[in-house]
Amino acid sequence: MTREKINSIAVIGLGSMGYGMAQSVMRAGHETWGFDVVQDQVQSFVAEGGKTGDLAAIAPSLDVAVIAVLNAPQTESVLFGEAGMGGGVVAGMGAGSCVISCATVAPSFARAMEARCAERGVLYLDAPISGGAVKAAAGQLSIMASGTPESFVAARPALDAMAETVFEMGDEAGPGSAIKAVNQLLGGVHIAAMAEAMTFGMTQGIEPDRIVEVISKCAGTSWLFENRAPHIVDGDYTPRSAVDIWPKDLGIILDIAREANFSAPITAAALQQFLAASGSGLGREDDAAVAKVYARNANITLPGDT
Amino acid sequence: MTREKINSIAVIGLGSMGYGMAQSVMRAGHETWGFDVVQDQVQSFVAEGGKTGDLAAIAPSLDVAVIAVLNAPQTESVLFGEAGMGGGVVAGMGAGSCVISCATVAPSFARAMEARCAERGVLYLDAPISGGAVKAAAGQLSIMASGTPESFVAARPALDAMAETVFEMGDEAGPGSAIKAVNQLLGGVHIAAMAEAMTFGMTQGIEPDRIVEVISKCAGTSWLFENRAPHIVDGDYTPRSAVDIWPKDLGIILDIAREANFSAPITAAALQQFLAASGSGLGREDDAAVAKVYARNANITLPGDT
Repeated sequence: MTREKINSIAVIGLGSMGYGMAQSVMRAGHETWGFDVVQDQVQSFVAEGGKTGDLAAIAPSLDVAVIAVLNAPQTESVLFGEAGMGGGVVAGMGAGSCVISCATVAPSFARAMEARCAERGVLYLDAPISGGAVKAAAGQLSIMASGTPESFVAARPALDAMAETVFEMGDEAGPGSAIKAVNQLLGGVHIAAMAEAMTFGMTQGIEPDRIVEVISKCAGTSWLFENRAPHIVDGDYTPRSAVDIWPKDLGIILDIAREANFSAPITAAALQQFLAASGSGLGREDDAAVAKVYARNANITLPGDT
Repeated sequence: MTREKINSIAVIGLGSMGYGMAQSVMRAGHETWGFDVVQDQVQSFVAEGGKTGDLAAIAPSLDVAVIAVLNAPQTESVLFGEAGMGGGVVAGMGAGSCVISCATVAPSFARAMEARCAERGVLYLDAPISGGAVKAAAGQLSIMASGTPESFVAARPALDAMAETVFEMGDEAGPGSAIKAVNQLLGGVHIAAMAEAMTFGMTQGIEPDRIVEVISKCAGTSWLFENRAPHIVDGDYTPRSAVDIWPKDLGIILDIAREANFSAPITAAALQQFLAASGSGLGREDDAAVAKVYARNANITLPGDT
């Protein structure tokens, strides 16, 4: 096995995904820098052997900047915002270095960021991630990536460290974000439908564990049904993935859809249920807690309810 | 292996499911009677070695009557309607013989039929089926069944002949129909969501075969996504399962939901898409053709479109 070149890689955004991604990059032997507005996260990362510092000062030495923030405004701020606010990393990066942008954003936003990076000779990989915090920490994410061949080459050491699977979606920014949006559309709908089906079945007197047992073996199953419905059975809403992800992601999807004059009524219905969950104080619970909206509306008691 | 008793079993309703079920029962060595209002179906079955005749005359000799018609009104007519119209089989059946009712119906309807059968000493198994015509013909259906222990014993020879899996849902009619409704809720939503996701992705310039390839490996997948999305990729709307199933089944589910004061907005949204498909002349196409509603609304061209 050829010894890989050691790269200097920054992970900007050390939330539940970014922290694990930074750990994975560091474990792969790269010089790894971590940045976040939450200083506790940064200090934890440094305690594990990671580096940090002044982003603007470090930017010129970076081979790759992985942007693991929440959304498009945060991404734009990190890439092109004011340096004093911890943003604007692209201004300092060298020609041929690469941005890997991981937030769920609109394809049009990804294309705009790619073009602005290109003006400075910086490569841009449109690279939304999927898999959750555990896989992020294990270097086993799925990454849905698109960008120029040069950006893939430059990004490869970081991708290899972070991902089990890289779906190469095309040779420009946009398709990576687009397929992520397709996946999130289905994900949000499937979780809300799971909640609708579980609580509907309960109104008919079927025990929730029995619903999971039977449906998992029937045509009505989905990956997310099998993953999330057991949380309802167990009454366990520890947020492996929180309700609040979905108003954000389904909102982005419906923005993209509106730009394309695309009518998405099922996505829209699912969004309403997550908004009701978030609005009624469940935003930080596991996304299976959308079932609590249905249960409340139907006056039924979920497992673990007191 | 013990030799099983040869039973006299009627299958009433020789549509795409019932015909295959009758073949499976016959293959298992039972005396098998077939009935349908469509005489061509009956003649085909007779040509294969099946029996037919006057249902009222044969009813007293039956051990089991499998009711494989479309819906609740047809089920009620077959069980308790006028003999001259080919219905009313229960009136002639002997005490201890068993009805296996396979249509998707409301749990309350199943309970009512069970009670009316019981008045005449006839057992009733609430036994909706799942799996499609190919599995029906192969004796590999999934059957979601509930009823008294006696009805399970009486029904067993027919269940063994028709089903690969029998989910035993409880000791009275109702839960069988309820879990079927849960499965159909998810099924209808997942197919419509598949269509929404595929066409949404196409508006973003992703090729449909690529969407299937990636999503099948991601968290957004479902059994029905993987089964139906390839029909869109292939432009093949040969009805393995037709659009018109869904206005019927989702309508039944929303009727059950309304009885229970249960709000099911995602199911309701999916129903609208299938109604639009059916209303625009696509009712007899494969249910993946609900994608044509989305494509038309978004002015995009699906594979195979001319």
